[in-house]
This record gives sequence, C-alpha cells and structure tokens, in this order.
Amino acid sequence: MSGKHHVVVLGGGVIGLSVAWLLAREDLAVTVVDAALPGSSSWVAGGMLAPVTEAWPGEDEALALGTRALDRWPCFAAELGAASGRDPGLRTEGTLVVAADAADRADLDRLAAYLAELGREVQRLTARQVREREPALGPAVRGGLSVPGDLSVDNRALLVALRQACRLAGVRSMTGRVGVVRSDGVDLLPDLHTDGPGSSGGPIDADLTVVAAGAFSATVWPALRGILRPVKGEVLRLLPGELSVPPPRHTVRASVGGRPVYLVPRGDGELVLGATQAERGFDTAVRAGAVRELLADAEVVMPGISEYHLVECSSGLRPGTEDNLPLIGEVAPGVVLATGHHRNGMLLAPITADLVLGVIDGRPVDPVVDPARFGLVPEHRSSTVDREAGR
Amino acid sequence: MSGKHHVVVLGGGVIGLSVAWLLAREDLAVTVVDAALPGSSSWVAGGMLAPVTEAWPGEDEALALGTRALDRWPCFAAELGAASGRDPGLRTEGTLVVAADAADRADLDRLAAYLAELGREVQRLTARQVREREPALGPAVRGGLSVPGDLSVDNRALLVALRQACRLAGVRSMTGRVGVVRSDGVDLLPDLHTDGPGSSGGPIDADLTVVAAGAFSATVWPALRGILRPVKGEVLRLLPGELSVPPPRHTVRASVGGRPVYLVPRGDGELVLGATQAERGFDTAVRAGAVRELLADAEVVMPGISEYHLVECSSGLRPGTEDNLPLIGEVAPGVVLATGHHRNGMLLAPITADLVLGVIDGRPVDPVVDPARFGLVPEHRSSTVDREAGR
Repeated sequence: MSGKHHVVVLGGGVIGLSVAWLLAREDLAVTVVDAALPGSSSWVAGGMLAPVTEAWPGEDEALALGTRALDRWPCFAAELGAASGRDPGLRTEGTLVVAADAADRADLDRLAAYLAELGREVQRLTARQVREREPALGPAVRGGLSVPGDLSVDNRALLVALRQACRLAGVRSMTGRVGVVRSDGVDLLPDLHTDGPGSSGGPIDADLTVVAAGAFSATVWPALRGILRPVKGEVLRLLPGELSVPPPRHTVRASVGGRPVYLVPRGDGELVLGATQAERGFDTAVRAGAVRELLADAEVVMPGISEYHLVECSSGLRPGTEDNLPLIGEVAPGVVLATGHHRNGMLLAPITADLVLGVIDGRPVDPVVDPARFGLVPEHRSSTVDREAGR
Repeated sequence: MSGKHHVVVLGGGVIGLSVAWLLAREDLAVTVVDAALPGSSSWVAGGMLAPVTEAWPGEDEALALGTRALDRWPCFAAELGAASGRDPGLRTEGTLVVAADAADRADLDRLAAYLAELGREVQRLTARQVREREPALGPAVRGGLSVPGDLSVDNRALLVALRQACRLAGVRSMTGRVGVVRSDGVDLLPDLHTDGPGSSGGPIDADLTVVAAGAFSATVWPALRGILRPVKGEVLRLLPGELSVPPPRHTVRASVGGRPVYLVPRGDGELVLGATQAERGFDTAVRAGAVRELLADAEVVMPGISEYHLVECSSGLRPGTEDNLPLIGEVAPGVVLATGHHRNGMLLAPITADLVLGVIDGRPVDPVVDPARFGLVPEHRSSTVDREAGR
C-alpha cells in the first residue's frame, strides 16, 4: 500500500464515510463522491446497533456478523470522537423488547429461547419489571426482554463526526454523480455522466473504486441489478412538549398487530420512531397510512407519545439483498463493493470499513459477505465491464 | 378621503392584505407590516368558504354574516385575478357533508332541518348518492348533504395573488415587528420594538392603523387580551401517488367519533386535511396525536388516503372570540380592528375589507362585528392607550 494510491468512494453515507476515513488513516488518497439523491438511508435511520434483537432463529450468520460488528463499535466511536472532536452519539443504555399482545409474547418467548441457546445476555421481564425500567410504557405492554448489549447511535451526529474526521484526514469530498472512473486506462463505470456542484465534470482516475452507494449502488455498478433492491422505510422524529412524559432511556422495540415498531431516544430529547418496510422501487414518498400506523402503534407502546411534537416525517431506501447480508469484496480489478447493508448499515459500518481495508491488503474475503455468493466475482465482472462499456 | 392619508396595516395575512389592497385602490397610501411569526393561520388554512356547513342552530348571526361574505367572493376573486394576473384559486364544486356513523347522521338531520327552515339550498343524499358523486368515499359513509353553495379557495394561491395585487397597487410591505405607530404625535402602539429585515427601525407615522394581526392582535393592541384567544389548528397536506385514487372534487366534511374532519381538494391535486382545535396559548407544535387522529379519521371517510403522500404537517393559530364573530371597527382615534375571524378568515376577508373601508368613510359599523360589544370603544380606548403608554 502506498501514499500514491487514489481511492474513489462512491457514496457519502455511513458506509462510504467510514470506509473513506479508515483508508485515509492508512495514508491512501481518498475522494468521496456523493450523488445527494433523495432517500439517503443514513440520514433517516433510527440508528439501532441491535444484532441480538434483530436476530431470528435460522439467521445465525447475520447474528454472528452483527455481534462482531457491535464489538467493534465502542472502540470505533471512541476513535471517531477523538479524531473528529465530535460526539458520534453512541448510546449504551441497551434495548428493551416488549410484547403488546399475546401473539407478540409468544414471539418474544421464541426469541428468548433462541438467544438463551446461543448463550446471549438476555433477561425476561414481567410487565411490572418493564414499567419499572420505563414508566412511560402503557398498559398494553405485557412483558419484555432486556437486551443490555443492543445499543444505538445518533445517526446524524455520527454522520457529522464522520464528515469532520474525513475532512481532517484529508479526504476530498465531491457532490454530484461521478462520470467515469478510470483505472489503467479502462473505464470502470462507463454508464454515468458527471454533474452537480463540486464534481469535476470529467473522468476521475482511480486505482481503486469502492461502491458504497447503498440502495443506489446498482446505478453505479449495473451488475447489481436484480441482486440489490431498495427497501423503503418511513421514520418519524418527535420531541417531547413541555408537559409530555419524558422519552424512554432504552431503545424500546415492539410488534403491534404484527408490525414492528421501535422507539429510539437521542441525547437531545428527540425520539425516533420507525420503521416501515416496503418495496416500491425508488419511491421515497412518505405514505399517509405509514405515518398513521407508526404513530398509532407507538401510542400503544407509549401512550404519552400523542402529546409529543411531530417534527419530521421522512423516508430512506435500504439496500436489501436476498439473504439480508451485505456485499463486501472485489468484483472487478480495482472495484470493491461495500453495499447491501439493508437494515444494518449503522451497525455494520465499522466492520465494513475493516473488511474493505482487508480486501485492499489482500486478505481473504469473509465468505458470508463475499459478493461471489451472487455470482459477482472479479473474472466474471471483467467481462461484464467490457460488455457494459460496449453499450 | 385624500391620497395623502397614510394607513398602516399590522398583519400580512389574508385579512391584512385584503384590507390593504382595497384601501390602496381607494388612493390611500398603505404600508403592510408583517411580523412573520410562526403560526400564520392564513398560510395553513384549509380555505373553506362554507358559511352554511359551518352553521349551527342558534348561530344565526354568524350564518347571516357568512352568507353576505360568500356572496361577495365571486366578484372579489374575479377582480383580484384581473388585478394580480394570478388565479386566486376559487373553487366552485361545492361541499358534501357526510355522516360516518349513526350519531353523525342525527347531527346531519338536525343541520338539514335548520337549513331547510332558513330556505338554504341543501339536498339530502343517500349513501349511494354520495358515492355516485365521490367514488373515493368509503363504506363507512352512510349518507350526506349536498351544499353546492359552500365553496373553497386555495389559501396559498390567494395569498400570492393578494401580495401581487398589493404590490401593483403601490402597497409598501415590511417584515418585522413594528415599533411605534404615531398619529398626531401620539404613540398609539407603544409596547413594541422594531426589528426584522425590511423594517425601518424607527417609529412609523400613520393617519390610521388597522390591526389585522390575527391571533397575535393582542400583542399589538393590548386591550384585546382576554377578548381574543389563539385556537390552534393542525392541518395536513397530501398528494396522490401514481396509483392512488383521485382526490374528491367537492370539499368533503364529516364528523368521525365526534371529531370534525374536512378534505379540501386543490387544483394541483393537493388534498388539504383539517383541522384540529385546541387552546394551548401560542404553542404551534404539531402534536403527534393530532396527526394520527386526522389521518385515521380521514381514512374512515376516504380509505384511499392511506396511499397518499403526506407532504406537510403544519399548524396555525386562529384568532377566536367569545361569540365566534370578528372584531371590525374603530377602537381609538385612528385605530381600527380587523381581527377575531377564528375559523372564517378566508371567507370573511373580502367583506372585512369592505367594512374597514366603511369605517374610514364614516359609515356606521355593523353591530354584529362592532368591537364595542366587548367594551372596546374609542372613548374607552383613548384612556387605555394612556394607561398602556405609562407602563
């Protein structure tokens, strides 16, 4: 690895910025290009770092990867805080999963048994024990599960800290859609045109390109079409009023009428409510029905929310894959994917940056995240690049 | 009346601008000063021009005033369109009042009987007849009332047209809080300080001051404290998605679970949903519970709304009075009130401008709107001004 290498990271979300920051600290010249399209999931995210409460029997690989990713977080947050001078907003109060009806309670029992089997730190709570921990929760809550290890991060504070750390580490930042990324005279991404403020208007020469454009990654690496799909999520942001009950201290997750809902508190008093899941292409509209359901479901869990101020309704597009695991690895000479993080972009950002660094250093790719499982391999990609270039 | 007279209108909402435009056309020199405070009800309003469907047995005076006001609208809109070159967005498809349950149907029967007694043009509709007129309405709708004379206006198109008409008529416009308005060397409004861009920073000399600051009128004319109260209303704005059912053609009003809800279509496809009513002082927060209720109630009336895009949640402060009638008339030498329009600012704007002009021309004030009914009379005000000046 030499200081002369130029890496272009396509995507300025949590994945792209985490990769850029770590590579810049390794003395690589890094440029981040962000298209600033509507639907950035990093800006909208709830910010749960919750591999255990996201787990489900059968998804052992996701849990193992998520656990490794979460282990990396405290150190990552501390380093980022020191490097940026900004608090990245890691919150360590832990997570409560609560049941709002009998069906939910059965789901909770199943999850608890699965996690106990794996030796995870979880604790069953009665309704009374739940309300002792979180007095704002309502009478519909029939019991819960304490998962102290599942954390959260303030996604916006994190992005601010990452941008600042990147800047201080010498990362160049451009807004716009990149046109052509060239390596050894070969056009790697020939489909695109350059525009937008801050973009050079011409081709970029890069020794390495990292595709970290989230749900939009297929627009820069067309072979991802059919493999990556946008999964829309609507998220609400609320603030307590003067007379409102205080927000919960823990992340509170529940399922109401079969719909998952989470309440994630922020340090500044904000409460983030999420999230819907819908596959409607690149549509980023906030559906009226989604807002109504999120509010109604959250009110079942915490009735006092009705007195909160609704300050933002937004939606983001998660980059989903068939197996709900990300795509991290080389797919053509000089092209590395770091996408497909679906609901877990925040959680997996630090470990993704580590893995991309590993790829550059020639370490073998973790097969769980290897794009080869979807047929995306360097040899195959080379021919695809030629084919795409000829269109 | 002479061209030398200088009128200062405090408030740049629909009342202030309508007054300013009409006075400017009478060759008066007019300055509109708007404080640009959050909570402008003119910008948030649904825009119903609906004296009949707002009517309730016993409120005969409000209905009579509203009817006169509505009669004035077509001519006002045509003149404003011609003067401004902008379509003020008057919509003449009429209003349907629908019943969503048995209790609502009883209310509807009562309203229909009252209106029939007064000889108003209303028509009872069966559930089938309602759905023939508006196919998007849901199965909960059990019948309705057609009120073709109750109209609506696009409040934002109206404000744009009024601002343009004022500009073309030579009205001066300032943003900021006015400090002191002087007449004959007397400080009329000594409580305030001047600030904000566009404000002169010093006292304004005026021959006449019109207080048209809506819910904020008591902050410029302190004698209104205790007479005028802010009544918060939350309003939502939605747009149909590609696959959504089209919005209704009529204004649709209903009461769901005792809560009034209206759906007002705009020419550009927008659908305005309103409105809550809450007395919480000058709080303009959008309550989560209010949004949830409005959406849920509107979905009962028109289920397809759940697929609409929620593009705006906002709130405005209506200027309410004890008898729900406005305050229009002189309250001190050179000070005329034009406020207290509560839910009917759009409807009453043209007639309010006429009445203010009448006051200036020395015509007797309509006792129904005379501020004297609350003890606000010029003699009384003079002494109050002195008292306030001494604080």
